[in-house]
Amino acid sequence: NEYGIDIILTGDKEQIEKELESKAYDKNKLEIIHTTQIIENEDKPVMAVRRKKDSSMVVALNLVKEKKADAIVSAGSTGALLAGGTLIVGRIKGIDRPCLCPGLPNIKGGITLLADGGANADCKPKNLTQFAFMSDIYLRKVLGLENPRIGLANIGTEEGKGNELVKEAYYELKDLDLNFVGNVEARDVINSVCDALICDGFTGNTLLKSCEGVAMSLMKLMKEKFMASFKGKMGALMLKDSLKEIKSMMDYTEYGGAPLLGVKGGVIKAHGSSNAFAIKNAINQAIKFANGNVVNDIEQVLKELEEKEKNKFREDVKAVYEEFETEKENDISAMSFEQIKEDSAKWWKEIWETSDVTIDGDEENQQGIRFCIFQLFQTYHGAVKGTNIGAKGLTGEAYNGNAFWDTETYCLPFFLFNNKEAAQNLLYFRYK
Amino acid sequence: NEYGIDIILTGDKEQIEKELESKAYDKNKLEIIHTTQIIENEDKPVMAVRRKKDSSMVVALNLVKEKKADAIVSAGSTGALLAGGTLIVGRIKGIDRPCLCPGLPNIKGGITLLADGGANADCKPKNLTQFAFMSDIYLRKVLGLENPRIGLANIGTEEGKGNELVKEAYYELKDLDLNFVGNVEARDVINSVCDALICDGFTGNTLLKSCEGVAMSLMKLMKEKFMASFKGKMGALMLKDSLKEIKSMMDYTEYGGAPLLGVKGGVIKAHGSSNAFAIKNAINQAIKFANGNVVNDIEQVLKELEEKEKNKFREDVKAVYEEFETEKENDISAMSFEQIKEDSAKWWKEIWETSDVTIDGDEENQQGIRFCIFQLFQTYHGAVKGTNIGAKGLTGEAYNGNAFWDTETYCLPFFLFNNKEAAQNLLYFRYK
Repeated sequence: NEYGIDIILTGDKEQIEKELESKAYDKNKLEIIHTTQIIENEDKPVMAVRRKKDSSMVVALNLVKEKKADAIVSAGSTGALLAGGTLIVGRIKGIDRPCLCPGLPNIKGGITLLADGGANADCKPKNLTQFAFMSDIYLRKVLGLENPRIGLANIGTEEGKGNELVKEAYYELKDLDLNFVGNVEARDVINSVCDALICDGFTGNTLLKSCEGVAMSLMKLMKEKFMASFKGKMGALMLKDSLKEIKSMMDYTEYGGAPLLGVKGGVIKAHGSSNAFAIKNAINQAIKFANGNVVNDIEQVLKELEEKEKNKFREDVKAVYEEFETEKENDISAMSFEQIKEDSAKWWKEIWETSDVTIDGDEENQQGIRFCIFQLFQTYHGAVKGTNIGAKGLTGEAYNGNAFWDTETYCLPFFLFNNKEAAQNLLYFRYK
Repeated sequence: NEYGIDIILTGDKEQIEKELESKAYDKNKLEIIHTTQIIENEDKPVMAVRRKKDSSMVVALNLVKEKKADAIVSAGSTGALLAGGTLIVGRIKGIDRPCLCPGLPNIKGGITLLADGGANADCKPKNLTQFAFMSDIYLRKVLGLENPRIGLANIGTEEGKGNELVKEAYYELKDLDLNFVGNVEARDVINSVCDALICDGFTGNTLLKSCEGVAMSLMKLMKEKFMASFKGKMGALMLKDSLKEIKSMMDYTEYGGAPLLGVKGGVIKAHGSSNAFAIKNAINQAIKFANGNVVNDIEQVLKELEEKEKNKFREDVKAVYEEFETEKENDISAMSFEQIKEDSAKWWKEIWETSDVTIDGDEENQQGIRFCIFQLFQTYHGAVKGTNIGAKGLTGEAYNGNAFWDTETYCLPFFLFNNKEAAQNLLYFRYK
């Protein structure tokens, strides 16, 4: 126990004690909690966590929940640890989806954090921005980087590339107070162009496994080819050290475990085939995670972002009112009634030219639909992003700009045809 | 010209003729069309295709469109070729999204077709099923496989894994008349577990580039390590042949070009850094593409699928009516009025128990909402997937089961709370 920390081991007490017999350790620093159940890899994660209350993993997760432990290190079922991390330890308030962050070895001898590496197969832009600032904190506090480079996994490096998810996430990431290095292509990850690669879990897992697959298969293929001839065997013997070095660089079990970021405690997933060295690394990560107050830092950033969002909204609304006031004072008071009337007529003329709907041979409905169009434009014409259609017409601060169902059913279909900017503004508010 | 085909070269005539000067070829088999413009990789694809009408690519695409050529082979801008393939040659009627299918080298010395490899960053399940049967046809007709193995790119091999897209696609692929081998993880692709890997373009491109990146970086890393010492140099010299062999296996330019499947002609994208051998392979692909009638085959499968879909819908509707008729004849005629009344009362009792909405202190609205609930359940309660809510109440065959806006605004929010199966059926119909 070179770290001088208190360790609690959960599991079959007899087996653990037998293992420990031959080892020298400080008994005061080590507690063993006996458990009777085992979560298998075949178990359904959520079910396993709910039913196997006396498994080593669930007992350990409960210790973290009850603050009796600062962190858990587990090499057990990934699915169960993800489920247990979320269900037992619990999400940090404000974090929609915790992310699992394995490290992908790169050829500079370090790792690139994948966030998310497989916990969330479907993500929204907001999830990705949360992955980004959580990774930033983790890289600073646990891996000791000063100014971590955050990249967005994409299929091209230019702005505007990719699927809908990353296109939107790109702009949100640019807005965050991070060292955002932009889009990163899968082929460059191994060259260490960023310290954390932000992506949805489906993409992250695909990337992780394809890199692993290619590296392992290439190594295997080389071995086969080399061993096929005497000359090959001799050559391989001479290159033994280099080949070994490369192999160990590509072996991600060497770099410790993957943290689950976004839950209220340290949850470190060690690889199932971890050796003692890998587990030691994972424990070291857990210590730094706890000492670095990673959870507190995440909560702090969430608060700041919320405040920023609120202020931004307030400013948007203020700007609208100020513009409105200025217009009223400066322009209208100086204008004659005739002038105002003319301006208004001109504005409406444009509206009718672009947005009239005609119904031939049905005067009553023709009049009806024109009344509706008139009302709609009196209420809203999408001039400013900061306002939107509420249930009571033009929304004020109290309604926080929420769109109600009027928007989809009546307003959006109408504006889509004659005022694309208004339609866009309607959606913009919602989407944000 | 060992294939004995007619070739039309488009481009700068003078330059082409200068290149050809030293070569022996049959002038009757080769036509040159002079063009004056060049599409650069920096050009915006759609713009380039629309404006640079006299570029070699656009002229060649027009030859395919006008059936003056059966296929085009181009090593130019991928984006422009995709845009031009769709805009000029045109989609096959019924194909929503054509897909670009590069081959990923595997360690068995062959390739795995990626469909889609990057043309469509956002996909729907239906796109994926179309990619699947188009790949199947291509693998049979052009690569000569007898029973191509079709896999779905996923982050786990079990059924039910993955994001929403692949979960749904999995079931649709199972229904197709293909040799579907199920979910395939990125780590296994290189081991040739399938002949075509079906995925959205974002995933496909990520996979392609990560494999390329790892293979290239590993090779580079080895070279550096080997060259760093005398012993290393000697060893590498002895392994030269094996290393060269492996490198050429991993070099996907060797395997010819990537077909754009789903357009009305042969469009083959050769790699920008193709050598003469790669271009020859790509031309061979184009010949087989044209001779194999790939476009016709795709049209044929589309027709069959459409017919199948129609029949399935007819059968669903028929089953509903038959059930209804049987019920009417067998049960109701044999039942007394009291019995029927009792059954009906029992049914409604259950409805009110699960679905009532109470408003305290407002009798009028309380009565109103109960009338609405009554009407809603009289119209629809989601018992059968084959029917749905139409503008005129329970829909018949003529309405084809379409859901109208009533569904989202009123029905879905209501059923979500008290009859999840009904809500699911409402969505199911739409989603299919």
